[in-house]
Amino acid sequence: MTGDQRALTVGLLGLGVVGSGVVRLLHDHADEIAGRVGARLQVGPVAVRDRTKPRDVEAMHALHAAGATLTDDPSAVVGADGVDIVVEVMGGVDPARDLLLAALKSGQSVVTANKELIATHGAELLSAAQEQSVRLEYEAAVAGAIPIIKPMRESLAGDRVRKVLGILNGTTNYILTRMTEEGADLEPVLAEAQDLGYAEKPDPSADVDGHDAAAKAAILASLAFDAEVTRDQVFTEGIRDVTATDIAHAHRMGYVIKLLGIAEEVEVDGQRAIGVRVHPAWVPAEHPLASVREAFNAIFVQADAAGALMFYGRGAGSLPTASAVVGDVVPAARALLAGEQLPRVSVARKPIRPIDDAIVQYYVLLDVLDEAGVLAAVAATFGDHDVSIKSVWQEGEEDHAQLLLVTHAAREGNVQACAAALEELDVVRSVASLMRVEGREV
Amino acid sequence: MTGDQRALTVGLLGLGVVGSGVVRLLHDHADEIAGRVGARLQVGPVAVRDRTKPRDVEAMHALHAAGATLTDDPSAVVGADGVDIVVEVMGGVDPARDLLLAALKSGQSVVTANKELIATHGAELLSAAQEQSVRLEYEAAVAGAIPIIKPMRESLAGDRVRKVLGILNGTTNYILTRMTEEGADLEPVLAEAQDLGYAEKPDPSADVDGHDAAAKAAILASLAFDAEVTRDQVFTEGIRDVTATDIAHAHRMGYVIKLLGIAEEVEVDGQRAIGVRVHPAWVPAEHPLASVREAFNAIFVQADAAGALMFYGRGAGSLPTASAVVGDVVPAARALLAGEQLPRVSVARKPIRPIDDAIVQYYVLLDVLDEAGVLAAVAATFGDHDVSIKSVWQEGEEDHAQLLLVTHAAREGNVQACAAALEELDVVRSVASLMRVEGREV
Repeated sequence: MTGDQRALTVGLLGLGVVGSGVVRLLHDHADEIAGRVGARLQVGPVAVRDRTKPRDVEAMHALHAAGATLTDDPSAVVGADGVDIVVEVMGGVDPARDLLLAALKSGQSVVTANKELIATHGAELLSAAQEQSVRLEYEAAVAGAIPIIKPMRESLAGDRVRKVLGILNGTTNYILTRMTEEGADLEPVLAEAQDLGYAEKPDPSADVDGHDAAAKAAILASLAFDAEVTRDQVFTEGIRDVTATDIAHAHRMGYVIKLLGIAEEVEVDGQRAIGVRVHPAWVPAEHPLASVREAFNAIFVQADAAGALMFYGRGAGSLPTASAVVGDVVPAARALLAGEQLPRVSVARKPIRPIDDAIVQYYVLLDVLDEAGVLAAVAATFGDHDVSIKSVWQEGEEDHAQLLLVTHAAREGNVQACAAALEELDVVRSVASLMRVEGREV
Repeated sequence: MTGDQRALTVGLLGLGVVGSGVVRLLHDHADEIAGRVGARLQVGPVAVRDRTKPRDVEAMHALHAAGATLTDDPSAVVGADGVDIVVEVMGGVDPARDLLLAALKSGQSVVTANKELIATHGAELLSAAQEQSVRLEYEAAVAGAIPIIKPMRESLAGDRVRKVLGILNGTTNYILTRMTEEGADLEPVLAEAQDLGYAEKPDPSADVDGHDAAAKAAILASLAFDAEVTRDQVFTEGIRDVTATDIAHAHRMGYVIKLLGIAEEVEVDGQRAIGVRVHPAWVPAEHPLASVREAFNAIFVQADAAGALMFYGRGAGSLPTASAVVGDVVPAARALLAGEQLPRVSVARKPIRPIDDAIVQYYVLLDVLDEAGVLAAVAATFGDHDVSIKSVWQEGEEDHAQLLLVTHAAREGNVQACAAALEELDVVRSVASLMRVEGREV
């Protein structure tokens, strides 16, 4: 084995579940990693908020074996002499943002798992990294263990990505899988997910309302289209309104319901614009995303030359996320040894397409009166709003009737206006469900 | 946009379907690529065997626009002044091997799509690349457009891969998909695949007998386990013996049949050894590989920390393969601009586990006499060979009866000896099918 002569030091900010996993992997796989890097990676100082908090025993043993200090002073890591690579696994925007800016400015390479930070201040951090010609890596910030950042940035660098569809949140995919396979409604399954620790208690909003997926969608859109896209630009709807009835209807028509993060590049008035949104959608049962079950994540990419690609794996968890972090540390270490001077690359600001201008296909479920003329009134309303109907079914159930419609692709704003107008019709009791259809290009 | 000041030159060896795709992508996406590299990539001289052969019109236009020469002299590319990166898309071992060794020795970076060459002489080429500290990239050699080489080498560099299961050949996956969905036998579907150009005429052996998949399995095993594994070390069985009956039996028991390339690292006598094989296998219908249809490829990776990962996409075709080639050219170009000095990494020689020592689960179909004592005789034979039966079904059909058995995991050599002994039993007419079961770990 070569490379035992040299060593690089990896400092950590944070030592929670992911940080503990990182320390364990660097320790347990030290020999293989040395072979792959060409130098040993030494676990260096670890800065935490509260030194007295109980920690993962195996990680503490590994730290002890490495002679690494545990401190509550981040300056023992950030900008510290002899710390070559800073791994940030503390989470949150503050103080992570200031710490990482300081680390980059001092010439340290940075690896982070912090999706919130990258989705809000990614461009600022990347610019700081470029100024110092050091690396900023964040594979673990999107879809845990799944390699997606590097494939997007490197493997597809000669191609043009058109659209990205991702199952980016394991908790909601777990909930939708249980609802689908057990015919259950959201509430009991959510309670079960909270008991299993998949969803936060008491407030599961980050997962269920789509915020977590939205941060990841912003990062994917930035990468796919060489642009700066932030979390607040992502149109976001969660899964709270998805019912067992919706899932049953979808199933009967050959679809499953998934919470998708969607990023696409489109022409608007001759200009390229980016559309980015998170919402539940009907996905055809034969689409590769449809068979992604339980808490797994997957990202489906449509590129001009490569065609359809999909990346599948665990989106969260201590060791899967730690694997992605160490998978960023290794090339960062190799780059340091290689004396890499990074060329500057360009990131353009591109306009974001307003959600109302999105072109989408819809599934619409209406509770209607069971009388003559209903379909004519409904169809006229669709026509008035320039929304074309692809197929329609009517079914009676005791005292009320239901109309199920699938539209052709239509302008989002028109569909929403059409739905509002439908609510006003005398023959329509309510718009019981309104859901987008995705993944029909395959 | 930055980087317009500098340019790097990319020379090609070969201008067939893949080479034409590479030229078109470099031309059509020149501006985006310049933004991602930090310099413009100039298509340089292209060396072909026969200058008079008709070529792709769009590629010729792109060459003309770039002012690139088409020559039958490879020395205009290999070792030529001003050619920074050599793209080899000519295929075959000779003369590609000598040309690429010469290119690497002259300090050029090399990108190749040549699976045969890498699966037979990969270690020699990598060693030549390391001596000159230049890059040798071969993402396109395995599974076309699917990014798998870089994820294995980089993203999983901090992890330990245990097993790789891949659908590595699109033609056989297309044939098995048609057989499954139409209940057809191999012969008519193979003839159809040949007419569609999916399988070679008149000899479809490279695909159908598993040779193509075996070369890719050797490359994956090398990468997954930091070892030198060559094509001739891969145990290889093709799909010629798979029947519509096998597929129907598998379906009834919740399985599909796929041609898999399998690489695993195992302990043999306290030493690590590599098992690598290609053969048809039963895969559970709920396994992510089971839903990979038509000519798509997919690679399923089981790693200690990351858990299960899968990479899915098009395994062949002009533009998908060209996308992977250009996806290698871009980081190679960035590395040149960055003045990267590659650290030396270690590749160990590891023993290859003999196929007889593989531990596998089997599905066995026996044509037996319909009389008392058959099951007892069969069960005794399994017991004699230390193969434990997990489940068994008996069914009668007109004048003959069938026994279907699924074994527990057993030593391959024992199962083969058991099958030979079963053939000798008076009560057994024939061993109608003998097929391995994979993917039960999920």
